[in-house]
Amino acid sequence: VTGRLAHARSVRKTPPNVRFAFLIYDGFTALDLIGPYEVFSGWPDAELHYVAKSHDPVRTDRGLRVLPTDTTKSLEEADLVLVPGAGNPLKPLEDEELLRWARAVAEHATWMTSVCTGAGIYAAAGLLNGRRATTHWAVREHLASMGVDVSTDRVVIDRPFASAAGVSAGIDLALSLTAEVHGEELARQLQLAIEYDPEPPFDSGSPETASDELKMATLQILARNAAEA
Amino acid sequence: VTGRLAHARSVRKTPPNVRFAFLIYDGFTALDLIGPYEVFSGWPDAELHYVAKSHDPVRTDRGLRVLPTDTTKSLEEADLVLVPGAGNPLKPLEDEELLRWARAVAEHATWMTSVCTGAGIYAAAGLLNGRRATTHWAVREHLASMGVDVSTDRVVIDRPFASAAGVSAGIDLALSLTAEVHGEELARQLQLAIEYDPEPPFDSGSPETASDELKMATLQILARNAAEA
Repeated sequence: VTGRLAHARSVRKTPPNVRFAFLIYDGFTALDLIGPYEVFSGWPDAELHYVAKSHDPVRTDRGLRVLPTDTTKSLEEADLVLVPGAGNPLKPLEDEELLRWARAVAEHATWMTSVCTGAGIYAAAGLLNGRRATTHWAVREHLASMGVDVSTDRVVIDRPFASAAGVSAGIDLALSLTAEVHGEELARQLQLAIEYDPEPPFDSGSPETASDELKMATLQILARNAAEA
Repeated sequence: VTGRLAHARSVRKTPPNVRFAFLIYDGFTALDLIGPYEVFSGWPDAELHYVAKSHDPVRTDRGLRVLPTDTTKSLEEADLVLVPGAGNPLKPLEDEELLRWARAVAEHATWMTSVCTGAGIYAAAGLLNGRRATTHWAVREHLASMGVDVSTDRVVIDRPFASAAGVSAGIDLALSLTAEVHGEELARQLQLAIEYDPEPPFDSGSPETASDELKMATLQILARNAAEA
């Protein structure tokens, strides 16, 4: 454990804020960010930053506009970094400024987290060579082709990296990290605060349990989303 | 089934868009909205609107700013309305313009959905008298005191109302409604698209399984959030 968070833990009497940097960029998937945000924001002394390339509004892959608080130039140090995925997952991998920022914040961050196809951004930045990580099931092979040891687990921790599978898995990631950093008690409290006792209506939310037909139909939806995003 | 959505279903050849109105107001809880949004936005011909009292940026209960697309004055008709809850759940109940808008859109909407403490807004608007609905576990008694037949279920459908329990339950609500309106196939596809195969780290995400001690500690967190929001 290094950086600001380690400092926060060692100096209990007057802990500095724990700085979260949530990367936002045009075309990001909102739930990738908002799932973990709803948990992380319950950490003591959480200081939340939304970092974009400029101060202009950022559009999600569904067109919702959110406002950054910081830019990739003004904020290059954080305790916990979160990178969400995108409806068109290839697009951010070609954005040199996003990759530069990922490398810069990685130098001091205690945790580098990703949700869904966000892991691809770390991989494209050269941060995940030989590292173990998970991602959305539809892009597992692509991530593996970038030199990552891709897991099919829902949450993977390979310090300082912590990755979640597709979209909704970010909630599980954030609760696991909460238990890791602050202990089980706070994690249970935050889970109960968001009443996270899920009842998915079907048992086919994972490619391991879904039929081939369902997977093909879903890949078509994802391809259409990518084209529209 | 009445209104624009019924029309969309009866005239298959040239269906009009299905209009979603997501109410946003200062202090709303982001995941209440973003969970269902990530599912609903996958409906065919979905037209997403974010409705606030003005065009100014709206702050979530954690300070994230999002931009509305419409105002409560400019958009008073929609097929599916979603009202999220708030970190301070009592505050929006005193906002006459929000209550007026809820009554106005209820006149034609096919579905009036709420997540978490959002059900209180419908109740305060006088829309839920004798109706069955669910809400965040911490405010069940308060909602019951407003004349609502409060359920402890995670998702409750009492047409045209469809309500979800606390925060994360909105995802289950949206998938259930998708199955109801478009059939199981699309619901399964959208569940797989967001890889919704949850693995909550603890079994205490519901007040029915949590200890009294955990509930008390969580209520303290919620009270602090309400004071800060």
